[in-house]
Amino acid sequence: MTELKSKRIAILAPVAWRTPPRAYGAWETVAGNITEGLVARGWKNVTLFATKESVTSAKLIGWIERGYEEDKTQIPLVSTCLHISKAMERADEFDLIHNNFDYLPLTYLPFIKTPMLTTIHGFSEPDILRVYHEHKDSYYVSISDSDRDKDLPYLATVYNGIDLSNLNFRPEPGDKLVHYGRIHNDKGTHLAIEVAKKCDRDLIIAGIIQDQDYFDTLIKPHTNDSSIQYIGPVNPVQRDALLKEAYAVIHLNLIPERFGLVMAESMAAGVPVIAMDLGSCREVIADKITGYLVNSVDEAAQAVGKIDSIDRKKCRQRVEENFTIDRMVSGYEKVYEEIFLREQKKKKPQGGKR
Amino acid sequence: MTELKSKRIAILAPVAWRTPPRAYGAWETVAGNITEGLVARGWKNVTLFATKESVTSAKLIGWIERGYEEDKTQIPLVSTCLHISKAMERADEFDLIHNNFDYLPLTYLPFIKTPMLTTIHGFSEPDILRVYHEHKDSYYVSISDSDRDKDLPYLATVYNGIDLSNLNFRPEPGDKLVHYGRIHNDKGTHLAIEVAKKCDRDLIIAGIIQDQDYFDTLIKPHTNDSSIQYIGPVNPVQRDALLKEAYAVIHLNLIPERFGLVMAESMAAGVPVIAMDLGSCREVIADKITGYLVNSVDEAAQAVGKIDSIDRKKCRQRVEENFTIDRMVSGYEKVYEEIFLREQKKKKPQGGKR
Repeated sequence: MTELKSKRIAILAPVAWRTPPRAYGAWETVAGNITEGLVARGWKNVTLFATKESVTSAKLIGWIERGYEEDKTQIPLVSTCLHISKAMERADEFDLIHNNFDYLPLTYLPFIKTPMLTTIHGFSEPDILRVYHEHKDSYYVSISDSDRDKDLPYLATVYNGIDLSNLNFRPEPGDKLVHYGRIHNDKGTHLAIEVAKKCDRDLIIAGIIQDQDYFDTLIKPHTNDSSIQYIGPVNPVQRDALLKEAYAVIHLNLIPERFGLVMAESMAAGVPVIAMDLGSCREVIADKITGYLVNSVDEAAQAVGKIDSIDRKKCRQRVEENFTIDRMVSGYEKVYEEIFLREQKKKKPQGGKR
Repeated sequence: MTELKSKRIAILAPVAWRTPPRAYGAWETVAGNITEGLVARGWKNVTLFATKESVTSAKLIGWIERGYEEDKTQIPLVSTCLHISKAMERADEFDLIHNNFDYLPLTYLPFIKTPMLTTIHGFSEPDILRVYHEHKDSYYVSISDSDRDKDLPYLATVYNGIDLSNLNFRPEPGDKLVHYGRIHNDKGTHLAIEVAKKCDRDLIIAGIIQDQDYFDTLIKPHTNDSSIQYIGPVNPVQRDALLKEAYAVIHLNLIPERFGLVMAESMAAGVPVIAMDLGSCREVIADKITGYLVNSVDEAAQAVGKIDSIDRKKCRQRVEENFTIDRMVSGYEKVYEEIFLREQKKKKPQGGKR
């Protein structure tokens, strides 16, 4: 294993936000966690490709000063293609490129010799599969068993790992319902409001507004300073304070969840999650043990009434056993090892002296 | 010259529209014209990279079935990056890649050996200069002297050439004002309406609606079935019929024109153009000879009163002498030759037997 941990690994993060993000930025969070986790587990040659202001204990290489979501003077594609192509120009310096930045890096694959592992953090639209399908000979990891394309050859599912240092376990429940993440119809923020009203419980909503129209029409009219509050985006420290207030987290996603960092974070704080039974929710939550999988607002409201039967210690335990950074990186180590073995085999037939 | 014309040239067209476009599609039009012009002038190895349904007398290679503007199921970037990267994978088959598809192809330059000439059809936003400035050692052509970035090394300005076969010269003026192109604030469609009202002349507006809000608020309320008509996009045959009706074309662009195909097309039909004195308009129009350069709606309205003093033959003549496909391609031939000379010189220092 010593030799394995000397391999030169490039972690390609997105440049929408800083790595790690100040508040929102799911892919940057995971890319940062993988990087820190590798270093923590003794990997000696880890390089993070991210915005220049990113923070890492690995080596940092970047060309983009700030995330394009944080500095709107940038055209996202300009920063994206510069970041990716500049990283690809340095491919020869690495034994493996671990891509966490969607499909565009794959289009540079024919020009580089270094193998690339792509963690598919989600298919934003089915059409992006056209790029993946052109590169079926590359390496892929899914972030849940449910978020897979049937035509892609995956090496493994590696669940996202979260940083527990900012998530204190709270044995005593708070008295509010909490909904957080990006505010978007897909995440069912409006359904959380319905649940709160049905249960006559206070609700705190937090997160970036991804769809302003949605927020203005379906969310804002219901908010006030007491029973239904919107508090804006939260950084990790604010999130920890928010979860202290939580009786349960309401996560009635309307599209299949790909992984669901919010659910893992909530459980890490000991907060049970009531989630729509779509996509990966069934993999992240242990139904009736760390929360409830439901199919409607009514079922969610009923589940709120059963929250006291959830053992909050089991929520924390589920995360510790499945969704820590160490657990994730140990999963990726197995995948990296498999890739190096396969690459070695590829080389053998042409090997030997000329 | 025989040897020059045997060089293997790849023309990279955009894939927003078919090449040539059915109606709108400025860059595809020019890419198509360059391709056809090279073939017409005896180039033997010309390959057009465009949508699969494109039409050319050169060799056609494509991976994208239809333009992403014509088939909205596509994510533009997916089609764009597949088209470009697939073309780049075949770079070794060519002596020169002539890029007509903006900045993304430049990011593949470090991975290919074939020289690339980029015709910069316009800087959509200043931020895209970040990519160009990373590749100052590549080759560039501007489409007018006015549309240049001061930090880029241009080999030449090569004006766009238009296909005169679909543009009949009309010695007799029509009685309407005409405004066509893409309907957008930048093109001053609303100012054409003001001019028409001031002069009490009928106006026909044609073209694709690029900004629906702009059209709905500033254009549509003024249109009717008689004095101010909007007739939608026009294909080349419809455009020819439209220009037959034209007394003058009103082109009060609010941002510097990069080249202005509309102005050249209008003059080709013998129709004088009244244009804002911004950007390349002064290079395309001969002021007071083929039209009028103005600075306001009032000046434009006055210019309409002076249209009869324009000799429509001189409009046609200006195009024949400066803006034909043959003229354009002859310009590119000189640029290609210069590139091959420079590439030859680059190779020499390391040349010779080992």
